[in-house]
Amino acid sequence: MGERRTEMRDRYPHIMPLQTRWSDNDVYGHVNNVVYYSYFDTVVNCFLIDEGGLDIHSDQIIGLAVETHCEFRKEVTYPERLEGGLRVGRLGNSSVRYEIAIFREGEDAAAAFGHFIHVFVDRANENRPTPIPKSIRTALERIVFNGNDQT
Amino acid sequence: MGERRTEMRDRYPHIMPLQTRWSDNDVYGHVNNVVYYSYFDTVVNCFLIDEGGLDIHSDQIIGLAVETHCEFRKEVTYPERLEGGLRVGRLGNSSVRYEIAIFREGEDAAAAFGHFIHVFVDRANENRPTPIPKSIRTALERIVFNGNDQT
Amino acid sequence: MGERRTEMRDRYPHIMPLQTRWSDNDVYGHVNNVVYYSYFDTVVNCFLIDEGGLDIHSDQIIGLAVETHCEFRKEVTYPERLEGGLRVGRLGNSSVRYEIAIFREGEDAAAAFGHFIHVFVDRANENRPTPIPKSIRTALERIVFNGNDQT
Amino acid sequence: MGERRTEMRDRYPHIMPLQTRWSDNDVYGHVNNVVYYSYFDTVVNCFLIDEGGLDIHSDQIIGLAVETHCEFRKEVTYPERLEGGLRVGRLGNSSVRYEIAIFREGEDAAAAFGHFIHVFVDRANENRPTPIPKSIRTALERIVFNGNDQT
Repeated sequence: MGERRTEMRDRYPHIMPLQTRWSDNDVYGHVNNVVYYSYFDTVVNCFLIDEGGLDIHSDQIIGLAVETHCEFRKEVTYPERLEGGLRVGRLGNSSVRYEIAIFREGEDAAAAFGHFIHVFVDRANENRPTPIPKSIRTALERIVFNGNDQT
Repeated sequence: MGERRTEMRDRYPHIMPLQTRWSDNDVYGHVNNVVYYSYFDTVVNCFLIDEGGLDIHSDQIIGLAVETHCEFRKEVTYPERLEGGLRVGRLGNSSVRYEIAIFREGEDAAAAFGHFIHVFVDRANENRPTPIPKSIRTALERIVFNGNDQT
Repeated sequence: MGERRTEMRDRYPHIMPLQTRWSDNDVYGHVNNVVYYSYFDTVVNCFLIDEGGLDIHSDQIIGLAVETHCEFRKEVTYPERLEGGLRVGRLGNSSVRYEIAIFREGEDAAAAFGHFIHVFVDRANENRPTPIPKSIRTALERIVFNGNDQT
Repeated sequence: MGERRTEMRDRYPHIMPLQTRWSDNDVYGHVNNVVYYSYFDTVVNCFLIDEGGLDIHSDQIIGLAVETHCEFRKEVTYPERLEGGLRVGRLGNSSVRYEIAIFREGEDAAAAFGHFIHVFVDRANENRPTPIPKSIRTALERIVFNGNDQT
């Protein structure tokens, strides 16, 4: 599958290590496609918590996923070490499009990449979109990436 | 989020029940976005196994996920009962695009919907795309849907 | 592994169907040992919700797992159909020991069995054990099993 | 729950970091009890692979879980950092009892602990127990712990 376009590491301003688990592998010996979204979730939420000060247990706002997408280029497998890259493709008033890539440790070309769109809403009324809080917005602004949006 | 377009049940020729699990819920009390892809996987593979005779343990071919996508319209939550709808949006020589929707039991409008693209390859050489076997193709042909491809 | 003692279906007064998922299988082609505990969770919580009226989203009490245990006798594999058996081995003031078995559909001898101990606590103060509410206690009393406690 | 006996870090000769994931949390905001077993799996298999040279994709032997057990002492929650401790409680001809503890980063008292029993079998005939290969046995012997077996 390697001939198709993929994403390169230098397009992701934030990178974090990801640990694979035995149970990530499926019957074919690869990390199951489902698990990549759990990596996406982890990369996004770690950033929001560590860099933006999100408190998932008591903040008045919560982020709801409204769309996710992933393209798979190379199989990865437990016990490989992986890294997750993150950038912001679009930063709205109450929504944000994260673009995420999964790399084998030390590789430049992504094994998989995709996006994840969050809408921030009021915890007590999930139908009410809410402006992204300032601390989170400031963090997200640091990783806005102005390349072409490709996925 | 309800105003946006969603998918309707009558556009899915194959429907199966899906059981939710306690661990499907996340800290916000909804089924985690990641878990929908596990429902997608289950709907697709149940169909391939039950209707197409796929043997995931010994068949010479395996299906690799090359792209998945999901749009979320309504939150669902354990212990709700769900149903998964399946149609084929495109049937190639060695690849297939499944279109899947997740419904709350008895509802017509999908709570979430998306697609999943499989490429069939040789188990011993995963870089070699392989024609879809006849029994699987015959099953998939029965659920090709000629509406507009919308996701 | 078949020679060792297992549990029989007639020792479980409550039985419910369990749906396996593609992602339940591990690299060896069996349902991963971890996933059995997700079946346990599902059997226990479905019972508490359906029979005891537990509201996991707003009840003042929550059940915390303090001990779980499982013995594995026969491998099961997606896409098999399974059933979960449940009985109460010990019903205390604020704690309960559930005994659970996982059966292949229609089989009498358990493929796996174990236990799960819940302590009910106050949602706002998880260090404070709380008496089991009457509706839940009444439901649990119906499935107390007086055989020998074997695990 | 803090008054009950727990396990201390100095009783575990092998320690490794464990990364939590967003999806590890359940609706009550804690790491779900099921997920601890996925940490157990990861600690055990990382050791077998890194220290014992196990090749999960092609080795002639595979390890089957025959019994697992966990006791929970303190709640942990994503995004905490955790560590997994491992020792061998009993090393047989073809079976091994691992004893595992989960620590919050830097804490001495385990948040949870338990055991996991593996029987090694032939990949082609899973009913045939097989002696533990020499490289794996040598690794396991290094972490046999002669304290009292308490779980």
